[in-house]
Amino acid sequence: MLTKTTHLFDDATRVTAGDSRWQGQTSDDYWAFVGPFGGITAATILRALIEHPERAGDPLALTVNYCAPIAQGAFDLDVRLVKANRSSQHWCVELTQGGGDVATLATAVFAERRPSWSHQPAEFPQAKPFEQIKPYPRIKASWANQYDFRFVEGHPDFGGGTKDAPASTHSKVWIADRVLRKIDALSVMSMSDAFFARVFHARSELVPFGTVSLTTYFHVGADDLAADDINRVLAVVDAKIFHKSYGDQNGELWSPNGRLLATTTQIGYFKA
Amino acid sequence: MLTKTTHLFDDATRVTAGDSRWQGQTSDDYWAFVGPFGGITAATILRALIEHPERAGDPLALTVNYCAPIAQGAFDLDVRLVKANRSSQHWCVELTQGGGDVATLATAVFAERRPSWSHQPAEFPQAKPFEQIKPYPRIKASWANQYDFRFVEGHPDFGGGTKDAPASTHSKVWIADRVLRKIDALSVMSMSDAFFARVFHARSELVPFGTVSLTTYFHVGADDLAADDINRVLAVVDAKIFHKSYGDQNGELWSPNGRLLATTTQIGYFKA
Repeated sequence: MLTKTTHLFDDATRVTAGDSRWQGQTSDDYWAFVGPFGGITAATILRALIEHPERAGDPLALTVNYCAPIAQGAFDLDVRLVKANRSSQHWCVELTQGGGDVATLATAVFAERRPSWSHQPAEFPQAKPFEQIKPYPRIKASWANQYDFRFVEGHPDFGGGTKDAPASTHSKVWIADRVLRKIDALSVMSMSDAFFARVFHARSELVPFGTVSLTTYFHVGADDLAADDINRVLAVVDAKIFHKSYGDQNGELWSPNGRLLATTTQIGYFKA
Repeated sequence: MLTKTTHLFDDATRVTAGDSRWQGQTSDDYWAFVGPFGGITAATILRALIEHPERAGDPLALTVNYCAPIAQGAFDLDVRLVKANRSSQHWCVELTQGGGDVATLATAVFAERRPSWSHQPAEFPQAKPFEQIKPYPRIKASWANQYDFRFVEGHPDFGGGTKDAPASTHSKVWIADRVLRKIDALSVMSMSDAFFARVFHARSELVPFGTVSLTTYFHVGADDLAADDINRVLAVVDAKIFHKSYGDQNGELWSPNGRLLATTTQIGYFKA
């Protein structure tokens, strides 16, 4: 039974266990232009894996290929443990609706994060504190309103039409759940797809866009995240190229405490 | 029949067509410490897809999860077209040996690269010409000797033992096939795994290391590559973090003509 205290995010990513076939359903609260927000789909797939009785270790890598639009309503997740090793697991997940074609195809790696030498060459990005920045206003896509975006650099400016030269594709942004929720692997996964498409930034306008493939690496264990006890991340994101209808994106998600939580990259289709 | 004119790379990535099950075999010429060089496995999987009669479009994204060591000898590739759209395809490939567990799990996206607005925010790295740099000497791992590495920055220095502080994880390097071969998607794929592990650079020593998951995005079409007519790439690579036995890597592969051919990222296990 749902209670009033359930976070929308947890409601949206809820799954019902099966043996190899799990169930979930899309959430109107995390809806994008033509289907569910890709981040919530990725987080739902990750939740099915984390809650799977055979799962061992923490999420290390998740790749999600968005093969076809997902319609509003129920979906099935075919969850398969492809290979289990002593300290790592390889999973494959297929999302289908009503016995139809695969709409989303994902692979995941879980691993026991054993103590080791640690080194973080990446530098924590300098940023104005979250509290000193105005939240980004609500927009039409419901998913974006579930987040509290506070742009430090690279503010969205999609109303101006194409400028003479492309604008910067870099953004630095604080991201929190609008209704605060402690950061865990699920929200990190979802937030790794929560950047506005870089092509919008480059062209200073909205154009048809869809993520095709998304890969996120987790650089902390569940215990690290639990100990961090944070409810927002500082993220930096950029793009390197847009060519022949496809463009890339790469980002970092940081704990306010200076720890790199995750790196992410994606390639997406655009029409421009 | 093989002739003397076959390039070692094409020999090493050769596959025999089946319906959904293709065959290949490991190559001693591209051997790493405990199994085949990951790049050659990735390129072999890509070759099976490119040569598949149902394949349409150019490779856009390939993710390869290395689940278990591959033994010397023959392997099977179970190749499955998961979803075909009007202008894109989603594939899944499982590599097995002798009917055993899955040793490698890959997903790929192919797409028709239609003309569009183009923009390359990433800057072409400045580098001394290939010809002015001495080739990196031959080493014990045979795969590395199939490449002509010319380090512009971040030379490997693995003999010194661990320094007081970790060394830089950045490298800039020209990569060509030792026996020259025109760059195509297959060699781009293989070269995207041809960086020495960043943990070796950070620690200035060799430690046990294995790539766990590798993702490469192609930013040019086959026609772009064919028109470029190049036989080497300029690559930059770096790492952001090493923590609890896993570390990341991210790289760019450039045409000498200033075009970004591919971006790549991977996460790998290390013992240190």
